[in-house]
Amino acid sequence: MISVLVIGKNTYDRNIDIALTARAFGASEIIFASNKNSKLLRYIKRLNSRWGSKFEVKYINNWKSFINSMRTYKIIYLTKYGQPLDKIGNLIRNYKNLLIVVSSEEVNKVLLNNSDFNINITTQPHCEASAIAIFLHHFYEGRELAMHFENAKYKIIPSERGIKIEELNKKR
Amino acid sequence: MISVLVIGKNTYDRNIDIALTARAFGASEIIFASNKNSKLLRYIKRLNSRWGSKFEVKYINNWKSFINSMRTYKIIYLTKYGQPLDKIGNLIRNYKNLLIVVSSEEVNKVLLNNSDFNINITTQPHCEASAIAIFLHHFYEGRELAMHFENAKYKIIPSERGIKIEELNKKR
Repeated sequence: MISVLVIGKNTYDRNIDIALTARAFGASEIIFASNKNSKLLRYIKRLNSRWGSKFEVKYINNWKSFINSMRTYKIIYLTKYGQPLDKIGNLIRNYKNLLIVVSSEEVNKVLLNNSDFNINITTQPHCEASAIAIFLHHFYEGRELAMHFENAKYKIIPSERGIKIEELNKKR
Repeated sequence: MISVLVIGKNTYDRNIDIALTARAFGASEIIFASNKNSKLLRYIKRLNSRWGSKFEVKYINNWKSFINSMRTYKIIYLTKYGQPLDKIGNLIRNYKNLLIVVSSEEVNKVLLNNSDFNINITTQPHCEASAIAIFLHHFYEGRELAMHFENAKYKIIPSERGIKIEELNKKR
């Protein structure tokens, strides 16, 4: 299972972008170490009911004790200071349970010294959403781009021009 | 040359995330079809002077006439309705000048019918920054992850633990 943990305070827009990216690129859940946001929870719930997936959003108080509780998971911290993705990304594909951590404020030095792997997604500043997208894209070797989302009511049919949306039969 | 055009209104946070992602993943410039934001311009300028690159931020009034003026560019519109990246991404690598367009508000139907290529980065909703990151990662075949940024004063040295920053000799 792939979980994403977001530490540090962030705006609603950024949290939504991070959650949507984690969902679209194949994570199972996102955990925010910040105050619960009902608007974001409702948004993702509605999205799942229309477009599929059982993607979950959770909130926790203490990310340090949370990380300690994830004993069967490898902790992957994404910052611009870590090792190159193409150097250790293939090794990480051997693990089944990953907790991908991004921090919205400054880089966390405790985590940098205690994660299982620190990985850079370029050594230049950009954003949490892009880092998660590239990490998962590499992890799934691009298969996530055409992933099937279960229990969807609607499905987009890729097309050269215009918008094609198929309504799926709920009973099948 | 690879340019990124952002149409539609957006928050400062999202525009920064999009600009930083475009810069980190190897675009040469970003063009916002919205009001000029001096804070964003200063931020990117300062970033370039510390960490390198000649990445430019521009503002325009009318994106339709701007697109018409980019005659030597292929217009690539990234939305969840387009064709899969793995289907036409390799074809696009043959072109030298690309204008990658993302819209921050609803999908633009005029553009969907008039771009050279519509490409989906998954058929699920996520965000402009992630879409740009994945598109450029595919375009550069991952080489952008270790890209050299010219005229940098500082450079991050990827490492297993901690933070390693090298100060570069300005005179060399």
